[in-house]
Amino acid sequence: MADVQRIQLAHGGGGQLTAELVREVVLPALGGQDPAALTDAAVLVAGSGKLAFTTDTYVVQPLEFAGGDIGKLAVCGTINDLAVAGAEPMALSLGMVIQEGLEIALLRRILCSAGAAARAAGIKVVTGDTKVVERSACDGLIINTAGVGRLLEAAQIGFDRITPGDRIVLSGPLGQHGLAIMSQREGLTFATQLASDCAAIDGLTASLINGLGDQVRFMRDPTRGGLAAVLVEIASAAGCGIEIEEPAIPLDTTARAAAELLGLDLLTVANEGKLVAVVAAEAAEQAVAILRDQEIAATAAAIGTVGPKHDNPLVEMLTTAGGRRVVQMPYGEELPRIC
Amino acid sequence: MADVQRIQLAHGGGGQLTAELVREVVLPALGGQDPAALTDAAVLVAGSGKLAFTTDTYVVQPLEFAGGDIGKLAVCGTINDLAVAGAEPMALSLGMVIQEGLEIALLRRILCSAGAAARAAGIKVVTGDTKVVERSACDGLIINTAGVGRLLEAAQIGFDRITPGDRIVLSGPLGQHGLAIMSQREGLTFATQLASDCAAIDGLTASLINGLGDQVRFMRDPTRGGLAAVLVEIASAAGCGIEIEEPAIPLDTTARAAAELLGLDLLTVANEGKLVAVVAAEAAEQAVAILRDQEIAATAAAIGTVGPKHDNPLVEMLTTAGGRRVVQMPYGEELPRIC
Repeated sequence: MADVQRIQLAHGGGGQLTAELVREVVLPALGGQDPAALTDAAVLVAGSGKLAFTTDTYVVQPLEFAGGDIGKLAVCGTINDLAVAGAEPMALSLGMVIQEGLEIALLRRILCSAGAAARAAGIKVVTGDTKVVERSACDGLIINTAGVGRLLEAAQIGFDRITPGDRIVLSGPLGQHGLAIMSQREGLTFATQLASDCAAIDGLTASLINGLGDQVRFMRDPTRGGLAAVLVEIASAAGCGIEIEEPAIPLDTTARAAAELLGLDLLTVANEGKLVAVVAAEAAEQAVAILRDQEIAATAAAIGTVGPKHDNPLVEMLTTAGGRRVVQMPYGEELPRIC
Repeated sequence: MADVQRIQLAHGGGGQLTAELVREVVLPALGGQDPAALTDAAVLVAGSGKLAFTTDTYVVQPLEFAGGDIGKLAVCGTINDLAVAGAEPMALSLGMVIQEGLEIALLRRILCSAGAAARAAGIKVVTGDTKVVERSACDGLIINTAGVGRLLEAAQIGFDRITPGDRIVLSGPLGQHGLAIMSQREGLTFATQLASDCAAIDGLTASLINGLGDQVRFMRDPTRGGLAAVLVEIASAAGCGIEIEEPAIPLDTTARAAAELLGLDLLTVANEGKLVAVVAAEAAEQAVAILRDQEIAATAAAIGTVGPKHDNPLVEMLTTAGGRRVVQMPYGEELPRIC
């Protein structure tokens, strides 16, 4: 970072450069913050209970896309950040920055969609804020949502709970969100067959925790940076290698075709309705069964295993072709404005 | 609103048009929300305690100004929203949308300032998010902060607690924030003498509540829309007229000169470190004394009185010249991008 003077688009990609910016600029400047701050949901102690608290700002373009829109995304995204922290979402805030000239009919559609997503998840938007800026100063609409949730009593989630031999479970096929948006932007014909997976996954996380308790070691939703970023982060924080098997990964053939056409790696493309869980080996089969009970995770599968402790823990994939490749944290911004 | 098809700058001004947008578009579209939602801090019940939860997005230009910057503003603003809800701030989130090309040195200064403001108030930024957008899609830097706080046990705050005869107390002179920024934008020479009042007021609110308990009926910080918007909102919600006395209002002579030059009304200009409290008549003198004990409220004063119940409650000001005028909610955006 020492030689970089200005922010680049890649600093927002959710990969190595984002991590560097947070570690080397944001956290030192803020001072005295937890190193985990500014990336994950935080846990607050409030009286007898524990709360999770999280935030995300959404800058996706276009504002409406196949399978969702910025409103649904902003509600589901923050629900999901609470869900993977092992919390039951309680309430959301919603802050908007609107570009002067935005059609009110479009704003209304987006907010209807946000409201429907909140009602479907059984939570309310309880506080908000509205700012309007000049036509030149913002690109349509930016939405921030923050969320508060109650930590489930049975939840025992943390990098420190990950143990060699644990299994990696994935709730469904990769890349649908990112590829639906990129296809739509590029005007590709299969855009009509490809829809974002944008969905709330708090039903999945609650079922896993209520069914398996402390056998659920860790959970994350693979958004910016995709499955690759999540697995590299897990391997690094747990200090254990991870091996995944490509043939075991649930596949959406349209998403795969789109990824090939656009030259993208499905492992690094953003998802908005998927769950990655690390579970005890003996609970993996049951975890898959619990997930498959819900429609959005009908093709859930165990896709890999946590290896032994290692000083330089790698994520490796046994490919369908019989090879082995290292899975790396994406560097910067492969897909700008994806969430 | 029926004939308006597109969002106007004035929809973000914190006046009548903002209220209309929230009431006629935002809340109906979201559906099933509390009418108070999307404007104020919300109260959540968590186990044995009560929490306040609030959010604000900051789009101020320029990013740095006399007396503060967008980072300090984003931290103090959300602390203040919790404070006037009668809560002790516990934790903040911080979400950034950064324009590609922003100088990292500037980002670092702004975050240092945000961190210093948080430490001064004894709270931490516990979670965050960083997005980067193209040069054309955002104007430098936008920051959202959300906050969670514990409601103070002695706090009994609400429009429904306001009673005829209660006194209106103001912690200091009006308009310094808005006028410092407008002067700087316009390149006016007195810009050098005028600094934003940007500050955390949780020390003021806690002292009032701990000292006076339920004699504190209601509190608000007069930001967008200024004192005028706050008083009109109070009068309307409580169903009582309000009379304020112009000579009693603490005055900053530089701010007054700037307001006159720019053709602005001090009553409608934004403040970022002031408190308006409605207190029981018999507690007014003590409230002023409690506030004056703290440096940022050294010129606090009782400036008006809540009148009897009325079907069409007005806010009126007895002017220094001996006249009487109606104080109105500003319509739209007198000062764009002020917070």
